[in-house]
Amino acid sequence: MEFRSSSRSPLTVEIKEDITSRNNARAEELRQELIRRKIFYLNLMSSPGSGKTTLLTRILTELKRSFRIGVIEADIDSDVDARTIASLGVKVIQMHTVGACHITWQMSQEALEALGLEDLDVVILENIGNLVCPAEFDTGAACNLVLLSLPEGDDKPLKYPLMFEAASAVTVTKTDVAPVFDFSREKALENIRKRNPSAPVFFTSARTGEGVEELLTYLHGEIEKVKNA
Amino acid sequence: MEFRSSSRSPLTVEIKEDITSRNNARAEELRQELIRRKIFYLNLMSSPGSGKTTLLTRILTELKRSFRIGVIEADIDSDVDARTIASLGVKVIQMHTVGACHITWQMSQEALEALGLEDLDVVILENIGNLVCPAEFDTGAACNLVLLSLPEGDDKPLKYPLMFEAASAVTVTKTDVAPVFDFSREKALENIRKRNPSAPVFFTSARTGEGVEELLTYLHGEIEKVKNA
Repeated sequence: MEFRSSSRSPLTVEIKEDITSRNNARAEELRQELIRRKIFYLNLMSSPGSGKTTLLTRILTELKRSFRIGVIEADIDSDVDARTIASLGVKVIQMHTVGACHITWQMSQEALEALGLEDLDVVILENIGNLVCPAEFDTGAACNLVLLSLPEGDDKPLKYPLMFEAASAVTVTKTDVAPVFDFSREKALENIRKRNPSAPVFFTSARTGEGVEELLTYLHGEIEKVKNA
Repeated sequence: MEFRSSSRSPLTVEIKEDITSRNNARAEELRQELIRRKIFYLNLMSSPGSGKTTLLTRILTELKRSFRIGVIEADIDSDVDARTIASLGVKVIQMHTVGACHITWQMSQEALEALGLEDLDVVILENIGNLVCPAEFDTGAACNLVLLSLPEGDDKPLKYPLMFEAASAVTVTKTDVAPVFDFSREKALENIRKRNPSAPVFFTSARTGEGVEELLTYLHGEIEKVKNA
């Protein structure tokens, strides 16, 4: 039963590896440039509907007291999230990827330019909802925060390994709905640890506020690291 | 605020369009061949953790009384789903895509060969959990059943247009948890209809059984169409 597809031609694989390695080299330059400019760049990644915008709304309300923040909302289509963020009085742009399933360093760079970095301490990118492709393309962010919503199940780190390997930190969201789902925190932690032995893991609910304080403390620490770099 | 990325070079777009159009032409041949052989090929697509395996388990229990069924479980890694399906006494193979975020016609074809079609009426492909990329690549299936889990939110058809355009039918899953989520069936329907004016839409819960009968009636009808083609 261990069928493995050998369908991808060697050429396809080479092109893909070349694209991602060139992408990731340029993203590293972008990251270093942002750190030189003392700008903390945070990349939020997760499945569709796992609560990126809701958690973002919750943490923005607190972070904007201490920092000047800009937000990049990446979507294939629609601008519902950008309108939500704009309503908080935070600088935001909507990027439409016109079908693309991930954000490259170049798309990231153009979005940062369109946003304007002159007066910002923190930029938050809400990536396309996709637990696969965005993990392959380094955006130049100093921190990759990966969200796993409780309704998705505790086995997801086993099935989507690269996303959890690429995580600087993991947040399990929507913990308030635990009573109606079969989800084990212990199993989730165990499965995350198989992919990533060291990333901090937070259990949060934007609704009840569980874990939000701990996540904010972590983010404050990461922002300070960039400020003091 | 209508920032649109112009970062993809014309070359990249051309390559991509060429790949998908060649893929989809070959997939059409595969679809016609399967219909000639009276085999109904069903492609399940959705976000990670939206309940593909759970719904599949529920419908298999009924469908296997009338049909000889084979299942292809596609995952980037792990074989938890294949083990679940095997425990039902249904023929199953696990395909590992080794990082790939979608199933091409060729991967589909190789998986069908590895499964063996001699004694089957129905083949069900559980695609990679991804609401973006799998919609671009026709697998040769006669029917694309797209799942949207209630916890993901009623706005997802707006953000992931192609998946809902590619759907032969849409199933909203996990309806039993409605009391703890802010989800409107009317809005979901309205948003699905913006992308797809004609696909049947089912509201199901594998836990309570809501809508499963209606979905099975639809699938029986689609299987009959192929048998009588």
